Amino acid sequence: MRIREVHVTPVAFRDPPLLNATGVHEPWALRTVVEVVTDEGLTGLGETYGDLSHLDRVRAAARELTGVSVHAHHALYARVAASVGADVVTDQHGLTGAGSNQKTVDAVFSPFEVACLDIRGKAAGLRVADLLGGPVRDAVPYSAYLFYKWAGHPDAKEDRFGAALDPDGIVAQARLFIEEYGFASIKLKGGVFAPDEEAEAVRALHDAFPGLPLRIDPNAAWTPATSIRIGNALGDVLEYLEDPAPGIGGMAEVAARVPMRLATNMCVVTHDHLPPAIAQRAIGVLLLDHHYWGGLLRSAQVAALCGTFGLELSMHSNSHLGISLAAMTHLAAATPNLNHACDTHTPWQDGQDVVAPGALRFTGGAVPVPEGPGLGVELDRDALAVMHEQYRTCTVRRRDDTAYMRSFDPDFQAKRAHW
Amino acid sequence: MRIREVHVTPVAFRDPPLLNATGVHEPWALRTVVEVVTDEGLTGLGETYGDLSHLDRVRAAARELTGVSVHAHHALYARVAASVGADVVTDQHGLTGAGSNQKTVDAVFSPFEVACLDIRGKAAGLRVADLLGGPVRDAVPYSAYLFYKWAGHPDAKEDRFGAALDPDGIVAQARLFIEEYGFASIKLKGGVFAPDEEAEAVRALHDAFPGLPLRIDPNAAWTPATSIRIGNALGDVLEYLEDPAPGIGGMAEVAARVPMRLATNMCVVTHDHLPPAIAQRAIGVLLLDHHYWGGLLRSAQVAALCGTFGLELSMHSNSHLGISLAAMTHLAAATPNLNHACDTHTPWQDGQDVVAPGALRFTGGAVPVPEGPGLGVELDRDALAVMHEQYRTCTVRRRDDTAYMRSFDPDFQAKRAHW
Repeated sequence: MRIREVHVTPVAFRDPPLLNATGVHEPWALRTVVEVVTDEGLTGLGETYGDLSHLDRVRAAARELTGVSVHAHHALYARVAASVGADVVTDQHGLTGAGSNQKTVDAVFSPFEVACLDIRGKAAGLRVADLLGGPVRDAVPYSAYLFYKWAGHPDAKEDRFGAALDPDGIVAQARLFIEEYGFASIKLKGGVFAPDEEAEAVRALHDAFPGLPLRIDPNAAWTPATSIRIGNALGDVLEYLEDPAPGIGGMAEVAARVPMRLATNMCVVTHDHLPPAIAQRAIGVLLLDHHYWGGLLRSAQVAALCGTFGLELSMHSNSHLGISLAAMTHLAAATPNLNHACDTHTPWQDGQDVVAPGALRFTGGAVPVPEGPGLGVELDRDALAVMHEQYRTCTVRRRDDTAYMRSFDPDFQAKRAHW
Repeated sequence: MRIREVHVTPVAFRDPPLLNATGVHEPWALRTVVEVVTDEGLTGLGETYGDLSHLDRVRAAARELTGVSVHAHHALYARVAASVGADVVTDQHGLTGAGSNQKTVDAVFSPFEVACLDIRGKAAGLRVADLLGGPVRDAVPYSAYLFYKWAGHPDAKEDRFGAALDPDGIVAQARLFIEEYGFASIKLKGGVFAPDEEAEAVRALHDAFPGLPLRIDPNAAWTPATSIRIGNALGDVLEYLEDPAPGIGGMAEVAARVPMRLATNMCVVTHDHLPPAIAQRAIGVLLLDHHYWGGLLRSAQVAALCGTFGLELSMHSNSHLGISLAAMTHLAAATPNLNHACDTHTPWQDGQDVVAPGALRFTGGAVPVPEGPGLGVELDRDALAVMHEQYRTCTVRRRDDTAYMRSFDPDFQAKRAHW
């Protein structure tokens, strides 16, 4: 069963003005939809980032895959690696760690690998989770992913989520998400306001939702000293503390002096980072993300490695659509040592999607493993066409939260070990 | 596709008097053949150790697997783990490292996992190597696995391999194996004679087969000081030095003072051993063995971990039959970072096998990946019946090289850091 053609379609969907350490989300979030078609006419889906340089690499790699078996994982990886060459991409927004060649290859490979697993599942009448060792849970728990935000983009009307610029706003946002999705754990994106203000919001969440696991992620906007101070102040309420300070060294310094585990999707984002992070005991939780760990099978191998070294697992999320949610759910369902609810941006999509409704739903904050073969989701071609047209007409071509923020606040500086 | 029944058949086959640090191989080597049958009538094969305590555990686990899907890797593992409970098996011969509960579970799980992959391959029309990511090499190189040996068992006539008790005998054995199989690398099992005598045999191999990669494995019979001395003396001829001294600490001491990488199938044989061995830089090559690393998928995960930490890979062998050779070949073919020719005892089988002839062959020292679906080998039921009858009538129930040696030399002591 060989690859006959690959379609690569960039899409854009509306995104609220979510604040973070590097700025604010632009009105359009970009993604790339990959469709792999075999000589037998089976189609598989993958989803990845939409930044133009990445899109170009995905398109270049796609041209090299024709004729390769969908089962030839290693051969496909080698083709993608050859296509990428020595390139190193670094994200524009600075929120997912340092770039490296392997991370670049892994990120380009990921949507093709997911699409091939989708096809392999369809061909065998199996879910992708079955191809990953079988689900060990029927539904995957996700966390309410809260953001400080403006009421709406400055040049547009207020969105339905409203403003969240203080503890009360954050608690109200949590209440909305929990009502609508049933989430049983909460993550707050921090790095926006002074650390003590954000700690106050965490404390307010703890008071409003006693017993719910809480996390805060300032995206390395704090110094190690501040991280240690806030970490100890929140020692009784945090499930884990995510990327408080930059770098493996900084994280190690914090980890030794706070009571909770540190989690990361910034200082350990590719294989080269694992040995020093483990040697320095910098992290206790890895936030897995198949988009940059090279797809689902390679992510499962990283998960196994974490088990060997006593690292716990959770899952990272960027703004994404339903193909990614399905892929994340299959992987998480088939990962025995997933210890925490996964992150997802799904609520912020506000119903926009490229997959047909019905296959993905939240119940009690968890997504049941889709029942159909493969990923269990199908493209909604009308929606895809609309979102591609949005891509064509919107002016965003790479995510740049800082530049967008500066269009309103020319003096804005991205925060890194700022407080 | 669910497991309907499992057949577990112990077998015995003739084994020459191969010498090692713990004694000498008995006249019968034991193995256990596992057949898994699905509700659709597909059958898959696995092969594992034959020691009675292990056989009992395999039989007990087999009773727990009925009704489970052959795709439910994690669920099958959990069933096996529950069946094993808190048991810890330690091998009788002391050649494959310390026992642990995880290693025990992994060893019991392995033949079932291989059999399920065999079934999954047959169901999908795919080779097991395809299920492991696809072959990255068409044929898997193996090494000539030389042993010091007597001319025959003391109570029997001379075997066709003859005696090998000095450098000339070892070179002659190498010549025979290379003529018959085409091996392009050589391993000498040591730990039998004084280290300098064995080093002399390695030097003789180097002179007789210049350019061929050489290894020696004294099974931890040397002290660290001797290991360092011999390692440096053989610095120009050894590809790697295998388990010269006992323990992670001892190996680390040696590794820091010899020019070549150290390999192991003794000090790192389960997940608990990896973090300290890596932290102490005790090893440079892991000898993978799916029989105790929990089957092929879990071994592939260990292989990926080795890639992350810069450990090279080769493959360990105990006396085995064709099901294991097929499984090893599929795994090795689909392991991109396999750096060295694998070990195999195949020549010592001298044609005895439970698989039908034809699917497995050596060409230039390498075994081409079997072409049929699944493992690509089929049971020879007549041969299985003969070998099972041999098991029934032979008196060996657990491998004990030391006791057998003592039946000829009552004062014999197994060698551990002896020289």
